Amino acid sequence: MTSSPAITSTVGIIAGSGVLPFAAAESLRKQGIKTVLFALRGFCDEARVAEFPHHWISLGQLGRLTKLLRAEGCADVMFLGGLVRPSLKDFRLDWETIRAIPEIRASLKGGDDAVLAGAGRVFEKRGFRLIGIADVAPDLLMPEGNLTRAAPDADASADIAKGRELLKALGPFDVGQAVVVVDGHAIGVEGIEGTDDLLARVKRLRDEQRLRVASGRGVLVKMPKSHQDLRFDLPALGPKTVDGVAAAGLAGIAAVANQTLIAEPQRLIARADDARLFVTGLRT
Amino acid sequence: MTSSPAITSTVGIIAGSGVLPFAAAESLRKQGIKTVLFALRGFCDEARVAEFPHHWISLGQLGRLTKLLRAEGCADVMFLGGLVRPSLKDFRLDWETIRAIPEIRASLKGGDDAVLAGAGRVFEKRGFRLIGIADVAPDLLMPEGNLTRAAPDADASADIAKGRELLKALGPFDVGQAVVVVDGHAIGVEGIEGTDDLLARVKRLRDEQRLRVASGRGVLVKMPKSHQDLRFDLPALGPKTVDGVAAAGLAGIAAVANQTLIAEPQRLIARADDARLFVTGLRT
Repeated sequence: MTSSPAITSTVGIIAGSGVLPFAAAESLRKQGIKTVLFALRGFCDEARVAEFPHHWISLGQLGRLTKLLRAEGCADVMFLGGLVRPSLKDFRLDWETIRAIPEIRASLKGGDDAVLAGAGRVFEKRGFRLIGIADVAPDLLMPEGNLTRAAPDADASADIAKGRELLKALGPFDVGQAVVVVDGHAIGVEGIEGTDDLLARVKRLRDEQRLRVASGRGVLVKMPKSHQDLRFDLPALGPKTVDGVAAAGLAGIAAVANQTLIAEPQRLIARADDARLFVTGLRT
Repeated sequence: MTSSPAITSTVGIIAGSGVLPFAAAESLRKQGIKTVLFALRGFCDEARVAEFPHHWISLGQLGRLTKLLRAEGCADVMFLGGLVRPSLKDFRLDWETIRAIPEIRASLKGGDDAVLAGAGRVFEKRGFRLIGIADVAPDLLMPEGNLTRAAPDADASADIAKGRELLKALGPFDVGQAVVVVDGHAIGVEGIEGTDDLLARVKRLRDEQRLRVASGRGVLVKMPKSHQDLRFDLPALGPKTVDGVAAAGLAGIAAVANQTLIAEPQRLIARADDARLFVTGLRT
């Protein structure tokens, strides 16, 4: 993994879904670093990308992408945002991609993590340096300790410990990065549906009285997967996560410090304080 | 664990939610063994229990229950069906229960499994023998091998192997007993919402194109938890599970032989054959 590289070029952000590519672009802009977004068709948010210098690309356009990256003077490249299980119709194969098929094929075995690491190698072989968000936008990372007025009590701390253990056990399986633990019980485990859906499920279980525990108890615990390449993919929290946790009647959120992104820290903290939830950064 | 005890008395079935208590009562009836159901108020199905000799009891009525069990001549007791996270209002404490509070308290630490094992000890101390469904109604257990015309192909077999590994890793956490694996990816993991909800979620992910895989691929894998006392609680499959798997666009179901209940085997197999799904019993 690259450690805090000095940025010497315009940064090319290959942008999948979610708010992360834009949060990173904004953070870099504040630091006076120029960025160009390479928005992945079918994944990147059309409305938001319009606020930034950008080009649209499709999956499979490696030739077009490398040409555009060179034309924009991007030696440093970031790969940010979601790319949930693309299907064949998302791909527009150009010649360079077709020539690269043997190396890409090898990288497509295994789960998301393998794909991302493989994508990393494909870019590095073409002379680009892959950098991670922790390298250039540490302001978006969860700090260690409590962000909110509320803090986890002894029960919440026990739930956090249990959630961490469970996610550690799941780590090798390239499955979700989140679990909800209430009073020592694992209530829900995240699959590909994502954290918002997991929280909506917990809310529903409570509404249907299948989770019969007083509200204000239990924790959402988030942790990266074991083999996750933290340059490309980090668990992320946003104000929406806080809303989901409040609606699910939990006490708070725990996530691994320096390995979790907070796309909009100020709004997230304000909203958590309003709802009297804790948000806490766990020591690695 | 008791091994195949000869039944010498009327069997008392303490009946929680679901079809399992009734399936067991029917199986015993066919074997000429008398049963009485002790239907747990708030959990047991009112319409179905009416078809069998029964008494209604509430959680916490240990005195009433032991008196009724003795009056009905039940030396052998089974505890069957669901009891999802009861709340205080489900309890009606009688004096014997209050006297037993210290032993019950000790059993209420930990997850569902600990509670069940603790409940087992409470009954055994009062002179009842706790028996499991495998002891008396083996006709309800999943056999080894394929039940259906369809059988798992190489990809499905790989998904099954991955699902088993994942559930093994989750075993110590007293969480769900099921996972959906498609083309090597763990798509969804069961929490307290149960298997039907897990399958509905996979269907929804497919409908929303967040799971972009051709239908007829992937497997629902079910397995007991590591410390599960198989006398009280086994993973269960029914025709509804088959419907859910079909709707989710999976290829079939794999469950551990002799450790999975099939409440209505004939209907389940017919429905799976209609939908061209496989249902297969895995060697322990």
